[in-house]
Amino acid sequence: MDWKKIKEDSFQAGFRKLIKKTFQLPNGKIEDFDIKKEGPAVCILALSKDNNVVLARQFRPGPEKTLLELPGGLVDKNETPLEAAKREFLEETGYIGDFQFVGESLDCAYSTMIRYNFVAINCHKIQKQKLEENEFIEIVEMSLAEFRKHLKGGQLTDIESAYLGLDYLKLL
Amino acid sequence: MDWKKIKEDSFQAGFRKLIKKTFQLPNGKIEDFDIKKEGPAVCILALSKDNNVVLARQFRPGPEKTLLELPGGLVDKNETPLEAAKREFLEETGYIGDFQFVGESLDCAYSTMIRYNFVAINCHKIQKQKLEENEFIEIVEMSLAEFRKHLKGGQLTDIESAYLGLDYLKLL
Repeated sequence: MDWKKIKEDSFQAGFRKLIKKTFQLPNGKIEDFDIKKEGPAVCILALSKDNNVVLARQFRPGPEKTLLELPGGLVDKNETPLEAAKREFLEETGYIGDFQFVGESLDCAYSTMIRYNFVAINCHKIQKQKLEENEFIEIVEMSLAEFRKHLKGGQLTDIESAYLGLDYLKLL
Repeated sequence: MDWKKIKEDSFQAGFRKLIKKTFQLPNGKIEDFDIKKEGPAVCILALSKDNNVVLARQFRPGPEKTLLELPGGLVDKNETPLEAAKREFLEETGYIGDFQFVGESLDCAYSTMIRYNFVAINCHKIQKQKLEENEFIEIVEMSLAEFRKHLKGGQLTDIESAYLGLDYLKLL
Protein backbone atom coordinates (compact mmCIF):
# COMPACT_ATOMS: atom_id res chain seq x y z
CA MET A 1 0.00 0.00 0.00
CA ASP A 2 2.98 2.34 -0.20
CA TRP A 3 2.65 5.39 -2.40
CA LYS A 4 5.82 7.39 -3.08
CA LYS A 5 5.64 11.04 -4.03
CA ILE A 6 8.00 11.79 -6.92
CA LYS A 7 7.37 15.52 -7.27
CA GLU A 8 4.76 18.24 -7.02
CA ASP A 9 4.16 21.51 -8.83
CA SER A 10 1.67 24.19 -7.87
CA PHE A 11 -0.26 25.99 -10.53
CA GLN A 12 -2.92 28.66 -10.65
CA ALA A 13 -6.38 28.03 -12.13
CA GLY A 14 -8.41 31.22 -12.10
CA PHE A 15 -8.58 32.28 -8.44
CA ARG A 16 -7.76 28.74 -7.30
CA LYS A 17 -4.52 26.96 -6.57
CA LEU A 18 -3.95 23.37 -7.63
CA ILE A 19 -0.97 21.09 -7.03
CA LYS A 20 -0.01 18.50 -9.62
CA LYS A 21 1.34 15.67 -7.45
CA THR A 22 3.14 12.80 -9.14
CA PHE A 23 3.14 9.50 -7.26
CA GLN A 24 4.65 6.09 -7.83
CA LEU A 25 1.77 3.73 -7.04
CA PRO A 26 2.17 0.40 -5.22
CA ASN A 27 2.13 -1.39 -8.62
CA GLY A 28 5.10 0.73 -9.79
CA LYS A 29 3.10 2.88 -12.19
CA ILE A 30 3.53 6.66 -12.20
CA GLU A 31 0.38 8.77 -11.95
CA ASP A 32 -0.48 12.48 -11.63
CA PHE A 33 -3.23 13.87 -9.38
CA ASP A 34 -4.46 17.46 -9.48
CA ILE A 35 -5.01 18.24 -5.83
CA LYS A 36 -6.92 21.29 -4.58
CA LYS A 37 -4.66 23.54 -2.46
CA GLU A 38 -7.13 24.75 0.17
CA GLY A 39 -7.36 25.78 3.79
CA PRO A 40 -6.61 25.52 6.66
CA ALA A 41 -10.10 26.42 7.82
CA VAL A 42 -11.98 26.82 11.08
CA CYS A 43 -15.60 26.03 11.85
CA ILE A 44 -17.57 26.81 14.99
CA LEU A 45 -20.59 25.12 16.53
CA ALA A 46 -21.75 28.04 18.68
CA LEU A 47 -24.38 27.86 21.41
CA SER A 48 -25.98 30.94 22.91
CA LYS A 49 -26.54 31.29 26.66
CA ASP A 50 -30.02 29.85 26.01
CA ASN A 51 -28.49 26.87 24.15
CA ASN A 52 -29.58 28.00 20.72
CA VAL A 53 -27.24 27.31 17.81
CA VAL A 54 -25.87 30.48 16.19
CA LEU A 55 -26.06 30.11 12.41
CA ALA A 56 -25.02 32.24 9.45
CA ARG A 57 -27.67 32.46 6.77
CA GLN A 58 -25.88 33.16 3.51
CA PHE A 59 -25.96 32.47 -0.22
CA ARG A 60 -23.43 29.89 -1.39
CA PRO A 61 -22.27 30.12 -5.01
CA GLY A 62 -21.33 26.41 -5.33
CA PRO A 63 -24.79 24.90 -4.73
CA GLU A 64 -26.43 28.28 -5.61
CA LYS A 65 -28.60 28.17 -2.52
CA THR A 66 -29.05 30.26 0.60
CA LEU A 67 -27.97 28.00 3.46
CA LEU A 68 -28.01 28.09 7.23
CA GLU A 69 -24.31 27.43 7.84
CA LEU A 70 -22.01 27.24 10.82
CA PRO A 71 -19.79 30.32 11.16
CA GLY A 72 -16.22 29.81 10.01
CA GLY A 73 -13.59 30.69 7.45
CA LEU A 74 -9.94 30.45 6.55
CA VAL A 75 -7.00 30.75 8.94
CA ASP A 76 -4.88 33.79 8.07
CA LYS A 77 -1.08 33.68 8.06
CA ASN A 78 0.48 34.24 11.49
CA GLU A 79 -2.75 33.28 13.19
CA THR A 80 -3.51 30.18 15.26
CA PRO A 81 -6.67 28.20 14.50
CA LEU A 82 -8.16 29.41 17.81
CA GLU A 83 -7.44 33.05 16.93
CA ALA A 84 -8.97 32.50 13.50
CA ALA A 85 -12.07 30.90 14.98
CA LYS A 86 -12.62 33.78 17.41
CA ARG A 87 -11.96 36.39 14.71
CA GLU A 88 -14.21 34.79 12.09
CA PHE A 89 -16.98 34.27 14.62
CA LEU A 90 -16.84 37.88 15.81
CA GLU A 91 -16.67 39.26 12.26
CA GLU A 92 -19.50 37.13 10.90
CA THR A 93 -21.85 37.32 13.88
CA GLY A 94 -20.76 40.08 16.27
CA TYR A 95 -20.84 37.44 19.02
CA ILE A 96 -18.22 36.21 21.46
CA GLY A 97 -18.23 33.03 23.56
CA ASP A 98 -16.12 30.46 25.40
CA PHE A 99 -14.20 28.45 22.81
CA GLN A 100 -13.02 24.87 23.08
CA PHE A 101 -11.09 22.96 20.41
CA VAL A 102 -12.87 19.76 19.36
CA GLY A 103 -10.39 18.35 16.86
CA GLU A 104 -9.17 18.37 13.29
CA SER A 105 -10.96 16.83 10.35
CA LEU A 106 -10.15 16.16 6.71
CA ASP A 107 -12.45 17.50 4.02
CA CYS A 108 -11.67 15.68 0.84
CA ALA A 109 -9.35 12.94 -0.44
CA TYR A 110 -8.16 15.32 -3.16
CA SER A 111 -7.68 18.50 -1.11
CA THR A 112 -4.99 19.70 1.28
CA MET A 113 -7.76 21.21 3.47
CA ILE A 114 -7.47 20.66 7.20
CA ARG A 115 -10.43 21.86 9.20
CA TYR A 116 -10.10 22.89 12.84
CA ASN A 117 -13.42 22.33 14.59
CA PHE A 118 -14.45 24.34 17.62
CA VAL A 119 -17.40 24.65 19.93
CA ALA A 120 -18.24 27.94 21.61
CA ILE A 121 -20.67 28.12 24.51
CA ASN A 122 -22.27 31.04 26.39
CA CYS A 123 -22.27 33.02 23.14
CA HIS A 124 -23.77 36.49 23.07
CA LYS A 125 -23.70 39.53 20.84
CA ILE A 126 -21.32 42.35 21.76
CA GLN A 127 -21.10 44.35 18.53
CA LYS A 128 -22.27 44.66 14.92
CA GLN A 129 -21.00 42.24 12.29
CA LYS A 130 -17.86 43.27 10.39
CA LEU A 131 -18.51 41.69 7.03
CA GLU A 132 -16.30 41.73 3.97
CA GLU A 133 -17.56 43.51 0.85
CA ASN A 134 -18.86 40.28 -0.68
CA GLU A 135 -20.34 38.82 2.52
CA PHE A 136 -24.06 39.15 3.26
CA ILE A 137 -24.81 37.19 6.39
CA GLU A 138 -27.95 37.15 8.50
CA ILE A 139 -27.63 35.62 11.97
CA VAL A 140 -30.22 33.02 12.94
CA GLU A 141 -30.50 31.41 16.37
CA MET A 142 -32.04 27.95 16.16
CA SER A 143 -33.10 25.58 18.96
CA LEU A 144 -31.05 22.41 19.34
CA ALA A 145 -34.07 20.27 18.41
CA GLU A 146 -34.54 22.22 15.17
CA PHE A 147 -30.81 22.15 14.49
CA ARG A 148 -30.67 18.35 14.71
CA LYS A 149 -33.43 18.23 12.07
CA HIS A 150 -31.55 20.80 9.97
CA LEU A 151 -28.45 18.58 10.06
CA LYS A 152 -30.38 15.53 8.87
CA GLY A 153 -31.72 17.60 5.98
CA GLY A 154 -28.15 17.94 4.71
CA GLN A 155 -28.59 21.54 3.45
CA LEU A 156 -25.39 22.97 4.89
CA THR A 157 -21.71 22.45 4.13
CA ASP A 158 -20.41 21.93 7.69
CA ILE A 159 -22.30 18.80 8.73
CA GLU A 160 -19.17 17.02 10.01
CA SER A 161 -18.17 19.98 12.18
CA ALA A 162 -21.67 20.20 13.61
CA TYR A 163 -21.86 16.50 14.51
CA LEU A 164 -18.32 16.53 15.92
CA GLY A 165 -19.25 19.52 18.07
CA LEU A 166 -22.51 17.99 19.28
CA ASP A 167 -20.66 14.75 20.01
CA TYR A 168 -17.99 16.67 21.97
CA LEU A 169 -20.66 18.46 24.02
CA LYS A 170 -22.61 15.21 24.53
CA LEU A 171 -25.61 16.74 22.80
CA LEU A 172 -26.16 14.20 20.02
CA MET B 1 -29.82 38.71 0.38
CA ASP B 2 -30.59 38.11 -3.30
CA TRP B 3 -27.73 37.06 -5.52
CA LYS B 4 -28.35 37.06 -9.27
CA LYS B 5 -26.29 34.89 -11.59
CA ILE B 6 -25.21 36.86 -14.66
CA LYS B 7 -23.32 34.11 -16.49
CA GLU B 8 -21.11 31.09 -16.08
CA ASP B 9 -18.29 29.57 -18.12
CA SER B 10 -16.69 26.19 -17.52
CA PHE B 11 -12.95 25.79 -17.95
CA GLN B 12 -10.45 23.01 -17.58
CA ALA B 13 -7.61 23.17 -15.03
CA GLY B 14 -5.38 20.12 -15.37
CA PHE B 15 -7.66 17.13 -14.80
CA ARG B 16 -10.19 19.32 -12.99
CA LYS B 17 -13.19 21.30 -14.15
CA LEU B 18 -13.95 24.73 -12.77
CA ILE B 19 -16.87 27.07 -13.48
CA LYS B 20 -16.36 30.82 -13.44
CA LYS B 21 -19.71 32.06 -12.13
CA THR B 22 -20.45 35.77 -12.30
CA PHE B 23 -22.99 37.07 -9.78
CA GLN B 24 -24.57 40.41 -9.06
CA LEU B 25 -24.32 40.69 -5.27
CA PRO B 26 -27.04 42.21 -3.06
CA ASN B 27 -25.08 45.50 -3.00
CA GLY B 28 -25.18 45.65 -6.81
CA LYS B 29 -21.50 44.80 -7.31
CA ILE B 30 -20.46 42.20 -9.87
CA GLU B 31 -18.11 39.44 -8.70
CA ASP B 32 -16.63 36.24 -10.15
CA PHE B 33 -16.28 32.97 -8.23
CA ASP B 34 -14.27 29.98 -9.47
CA ILE B 35 -16.44 27.07 -8.42
CA LYS B 36 -15.27 23.44 -8.41
CA LYS B 37 -17.35 21.31 -10.79
CA GLU B 38 -17.52 18.04 -8.86
CA GLY B 39 -19.76 15.07 -8.23
CA PRO B 40 -22.42 13.82 -7.77
CA ALA B 41 -21.00 11.28 -5.34
CA VAL B 42 -22.25 8.43 -3.18
CA CYS B 43 -21.04 7.33 0.22
CA ILE B 44 -22.02 4.23 2.18
CA LEU B 45 -22.02 3.53 5.90
CA ALA B 46 -21.98 -0.27 5.70
CA LEU B 47 -22.60 -2.65 8.58
CA SER B 48 -21.78 -6.34 8.43
CA LYS B 49 -24.15 -8.99 9.76
CA ASP B 50 -22.16 -8.75 13.03
CA ASN B 51 -22.66 -4.95 13.08
CA ASN B 52 -19.07 -4.12 12.19
CA VAL B 53 -18.45 -1.10 9.98
CA VAL B 54 -16.94 -1.99 6.59
CA LEU B 55 -14.12 0.45 5.82
CA ALA B 56 -11.78 0.98 2.89
CA ARG B 57 -8.16 1.50 3.94
CA GLN B 58 -6.51 3.54 1.21
CA PHE B 59 -3.90 6.20 0.57
CA ARG B 60 -5.33 9.65 -0.16
CA PRO B 61 -3.20 12.02 -2.24
CA GLY B 62 -4.75 15.24 -0.85
CA PRO B 63 -3.74 14.81 2.80
CA GLU B 64 -1.01 12.29 1.78
CA LYS B 65 -2.15 9.81 4.39
CA THR B 66 -3.52 6.29 4.42
CA LEU B 67 -7.04 6.63 5.81
CA LEU B 68 -9.82 4.31 6.90
CA GLU B 69 -12.60 5.70 4.72
CA LEU B 70 -16.21 4.87 4.01
CA PRO B 71 -16.68 3.17 0.62
CA GLY B 72 -18.01 5.44 -2.10
CA GLY B 73 -17.29 7.19 -5.35
CA LEU B 74 -18.77 9.15 -8.23
CA VAL B 75 -22.13 8.52 -9.88
CA ASP B 76 -21.65 7.53 -13.52
CA LYS B 77 -23.84 8.92 -16.29
CA ASN B 78 -27.11 7.00 -16.77
CA GLU B 79 -26.87 5.59 -13.28
CA THR B 80 -29.04 6.39 -10.27
CA PRO B 81 -27.35 7.21 -6.95
CA LEU B 82 -28.58 3.86 -5.55
CA GLU B 83 -27.09 1.97 -8.52
CA ALA B 84 -23.83 3.88 -8.08
CA ALA B 85 -23.72 3.12 -4.35
CA LYS B 86 -24.26 -0.62 -4.92
CA ARG B 87 -21.72 -0.70 -7.77
CA GLU B 88 -19.01 1.24 -5.91
CA PHE B 89 -19.52 -0.82 -2.78
CA LEU B 90 -19.27 -4.12 -4.64
CA GLU B 91 -16.23 -2.98 -6.66
CA GLU B 92 -14.33 -1.57 -3.69
CA THR B 93 -15.17 -4.26 -1.14
CA GLY B 94 -16.64 -7.35 -2.88
CA TYR B 95 -19.56 -7.05 -0.43
CA ILE B 96 -23.30 -6.70 -0.94
CA GLY B 97 -25.94 -5.61 1.59
CA ASP B 98 -29.39 -4.11 2.07
CA PHE B 99 -29.22 -0.45 1.04
CA GLN B 100 -31.31 2.41 2.35
CA PHE B 101 -31.07 6.05 1.23
CA VAL B 102 -30.35 8.40 4.13
CA GLY B 103 -30.36 11.75 2.35
CA GLU B 104 -28.38 14.28 0.36
CA SER B 105 -25.67 16.53 1.73
CA LEU B 106 -23.63 19.44 0.42
CA ASP B 107 -19.85 19.25 0.55
CA CYS B 108 -18.53 22.74 0.08
CA ALA B 109 -19.82 26.27 -0.42
CA TYR B 110 -17.64 26.55 -3.53
CA SER B 111 -18.37 23.18 -5.15
CA THR B 112 -21.29 21.81 -7.16
CA MET B 113 -20.84 18.48 -5.31
CA ILE B 114 -24.00 16.77 -4.09
CA ARG B 115 -23.40 13.71 -1.99
CA TYR B 116 -25.98 10.91 -1.74
CA ASN B 117 -25.59 9.16 1.58
CA PHE B 118 -26.60 5.55 2.09
CA VAL B 119 -26.55 2.95 4.80
CA ALA B 120 -26.21 -0.74 4.00
CA ILE B 121 -26.94 -3.40 6.60
CA ASN B 122 -26.46 -7.20 6.63
CA CYS B 123 -23.34 -6.72 4.49
CA HIS B 124 -21.26 -9.75 3.53
CA LYS B 125 -18.59 -10.62 1.02
CA ILE B 126 -19.66 -12.42 -2.15
CA GLN B 127 -16.68 -11.91 -4.46
CA LYS B 128 -13.21 -10.40 -4.84
CA GLN B 129 -12.78 -6.64 -5.15
CA LYS B 130 -12.79 -5.20 -8.68
CA LEU B 131 -10.44 -2.28 -8.28
CA GLU B 132 -9.38 0.23 -10.89
CA GLU B 133 -5.72 0.36 -11.93
CA ASN B 134 -4.94 3.18 -9.50
CA GLU B 135 -6.99 1.85 -6.57
CA PHE B 136 -5.32 -0.10 -3.76
CA ILE B 137 -7.92 -0.76 -1.10
CA GLU B 138 -7.73 -3.05 1.89
CA ILE B 139 -11.03 -3.87 3.61
CA VAL B 140 -11.18 -3.40 7.37
CA GLU B 141 -14.13 -4.35 9.56
CA MET B 142 -14.28 -2.22 12.72
CA SER B 143 -16.58 -2.51 15.73
CA LEU B 144 -19.11 0.30 16.19
CA ALA B 145 -17.42 1.38 19.44
CA GLU B 146 -14.06 1.69 17.66
CA PHE B 147 -15.69 3.43 14.71
CA ARG B 148 -17.23 6.13 16.91
CA LYS B 149 -13.71 6.82 18.26
CA HIS B 150 -12.34 6.83 14.70
CA LEU B 151 -14.92 9.46 13.71
CA LYS B 152 -13.98 11.73 16.59
CA GLY B 153 -10.34 11.48 15.52
CA GLY B 154 -11.30 13.18 12.25
CA GLN B 155 -8.88 11.15 10.09
CA LEU B 156 -11.29 10.34 7.28
CA THR B 157 -13.00 12.42 4.60
CA ASP B 158 -16.58 11.15 5.00
CA ILE B 159 -17.35 12.17 8.56
CA GLU B 160 -20.69 13.79 7.67
CA SER B 161 -21.88 10.67 5.82
CA ALA B 162 -20.88 8.49 8.75
CA TYR B 163 -22.72 10.60 11.34
CA LEU B 164 -25.78 10.95 9.10
CA GLY B 165 -25.84 7.17 8.67
CA LEU B 166 -25.41 6.46 12.38
CA ASP B 167 -28.12 9.03 13.13
CA TYR B 168 -30.45 7.39 10.57
CA LEU B 169 -29.85 3.95 12.14
CA LYS B 170 -30.25 5.38 15.67
CA LEU B 171 -26.71 4.25 16.48
CA LEU B 172 -25.19 7.57 17.57
